[in-house]
Amino acid sequence: MNQFKFELIHTSKISRARVGRIYTPHGIIDTPNFVAVGTNATLKGLDNTMVNSLGLQLMFCNTYHLMVHPGADVIAQAGGLHTFMNRPYPIITDSGGFQVFSLAYGTVKEELKSKGMKRHTESVIKISEEGVLFRSYRDGSPLMLTPETSIQAQKKLGADIIIPFDELPPYHIDPGLLKKSLERTHRWEERSLREHQKNQQNQALYAVVHGGIDKKLRALSCKVLSNLPFDGFAIGGSLGKNRDEMIEMLTATMPLLPPHVPNHLLGIGDLDSIKAGVSLGIDTFDSSHPTRCARHGLLFTKKGSVKILQTAYKNLHEPLDPHCLCPTCRHYTASYVHHLFKAKEITGFVLATIHNLSFMIELMKEYRQAILEGKI
Amino acid sequence: MNQFKFELIHTSKISRARVGRIYTPHGIIDTPNFVAVGTNATLKGLDNTMVNSLGLQLMFCNTYHLMVHPGADVIAQAGGLHTFMNRPYPIITDSGGFQVFSLAYGTVKEELKSKGMKRHTESVIKISEEGVLFRSYRDGSPLMLTPETSIQAQKKLGADIIIPFDELPPYHIDPGLLKKSLERTHRWEERSLREHQKNQQNQALYAVVHGGIDKKLRALSCKVLSNLPFDGFAIGGSLGKNRDEMIEMLTATMPLLPPHVPNHLLGIGDLDSIKAGVSLGIDTFDSSHPTRCARHGLLFTKKGSVKILQTAYKNLHEPLDPHCLCPTCRHYTASYVHHLFKAKEITGFVLATIHNLSFMIELMKEYRQAILEGKI
Repeated sequence: MNQFKFELIHTSKISRARVGRIYTPHGIIDTPNFVAVGTNATLKGLDNTMVNSLGLQLMFCNTYHLMVHPGADVIAQAGGLHTFMNRPYPIITDSGGFQVFSLAYGTVKEELKSKGMKRHTESVIKISEEGVLFRSYRDGSPLMLTPETSIQAQKKLGADIIIPFDELPPYHIDPGLLKKSLERTHRWEERSLREHQKNQQNQALYAVVHGGIDKKLRALSCKVLSNLPFDGFAIGGSLGKNRDEMIEMLTATMPLLPPHVPNHLLGIGDLDSIKAGVSLGIDTFDSSHPTRCARHGLLFTKKGSVKILQTAYKNLHEPLDPHCLCPTCRHYTASYVHHLFKAKEITGFVLATIHNLSFMIELMKEYRQAILEGKI
Repeated sequence: MNQFKFELIHTSKISRARVGRIYTPHGIIDTPNFVAVGTNATLKGLDNTMVNSLGLQLMFCNTYHLMVHPGADVIAQAGGLHTFMNRPYPIITDSGGFQVFSLAYGTVKEELKSKGMKRHTESVIKISEEGVLFRSYRDGSPLMLTPETSIQAQKKLGADIIIPFDELPPYHIDPGLLKKSLERTHRWEERSLREHQKNQQNQALYAVVHGGIDKKLRALSCKVLSNLPFDGFAIGGSLGKNRDEMIEMLTATMPLLPPHVPNHLLGIGDLDSIKAGVSLGIDTFDSSHPTRCARHGLLFTKKGSVKILQTAYKNLHEPLDPHCLCPTCRHYTASYVHHLFKAKEITGFVLATIHNLSFMIELMKEYRQAILEGKI
């Protein structure tokens, strides 16, 4: 029996925004929601007991990193990712594709900057129809990532939601090559689905919609993938070089996805993009943005982002946000957090991360409420 | 009314070990006990809500660092150190002397290695009878530390136990100069005491016994300082170049301290030294050793120290110490902590610090019990 289910609770009359609930073997995810990124089976600086107490409903872990260390087998022996990392709540893993193609093309940001001058690192040995052969960044040993091995690894990790192996074509790609890449990605996703179906193991498999910045290819991708029995849809690949292009692409693409299953926007989670994405009907957003901002001393408040290192906070003997109920704001003043950042104390990262994560959890609650009240 | 009181509960018949209880305005310190070092008003990586829940009875903060940032005035405006750092339990601060003299002579380790080739950094501008003029490591601004300004700063911080301003003569010092240094330290401590007496403010002031590695000078220091109304005695300065020399010096010195007040061994807290010190009648030990070890992946267990980065732990799917009740061992396996260290995740430091700190708290409880049972 598959315990994965999506319940559509409410659809806005003034936008595509919707409120729903995803049921998984490890509990509920209310949507729309923010998905924090714990690449190595931890958020940076926060142990999972704390994360659990904050009420984060879904965490994103990276299969690529976990394959490289400690290895999917070690985590399987631990009893799976939930047990390994002490998180009895829902987890989503990706396929590793994003990371191996970042090795080949550089990160999204680097690639956008480089205007398509491909950076071929020595990490990726060979990309073929079969998959990608690359070197472990840890010890240089060769690792093969294919649709089958990615799904097998994700079975060992045992997340509630998993992702098929896909190619991440760069933003600066020849249109002809983009089409070829999309076709291969579709073949890889279908192979991933077949591998998944051998042993569904109570996991949900989301398709990944590709097509880069070509709306017709995006529409084709929605059509092809909708005809396969995926449990949900993630939107991946380059959606443009800025937020406006992304919004335009999502505006065109979102109506083409089946409404009765959940969708996920991969790797985008800055506040403005989430706001836009919620109106466009995105259910979940994963991003390391809020936690990375926290470590850089950029704290989110209702009145905008705050640079905690600014001298203004040195003598502010009240919580950063007096209305915030997070453990950081309940127990510490802005002055104290400022001091920790000035003194370069790790504890500063910890407290700032607790705050930004709590902010995101609260923000998404408010979006859900606003949709229910017909305001979005 | 001074709320500071020392109750001697039990003295061993087979050693100088003793069990006592220090009452402070912020609660009780059972002795002998370990004092964790939170230099900048935080243990590295642990927020004080966590530290409080672990039951650490006394924390050591460094006046020098807190004067440089955020400044004693900022902390005073916050309502004092306890409020600033969210620690409603006892705190001890030092005078800043140790740090400014480390600037002049190098750290204890460096100085021992250098065999007395003094390192004069440009940080210390002038040492005189009045005190020490030095430059802030933060912005280069000149700061004057004297017995009076150190006590005034410690009044603003508001710790439960404070320390008079003293000179830290290097291990490699000419015997004649050591005597002169001791005499000046005594004058400085008396000036500190007078400054303290202007406004005791419910703080206890411990004397610091000096005399370096000269037993006669140590005895003289005990005698001189015992004649002044200090609330307790700390043992400072160089006690020798290794543990054996330290034990020899403490064996000679401890019987010369008045038994009805608490004593403290400054800056020494490795496990073997604590074991020896407990038998010699030391009441409290402060050291960053256990927390620093944690950050380097050296975890304490009943069976000895464990290097968590060793491959042996990669597949150990049980707590590092199955008998340990700390949050780390209750929630995480050795395999997970090993993985976090391998992946260089801050969370690894956090979990290791929680464990070592809990270990120290538990260890000291066991020492107290063993003394009460006549085993030490």
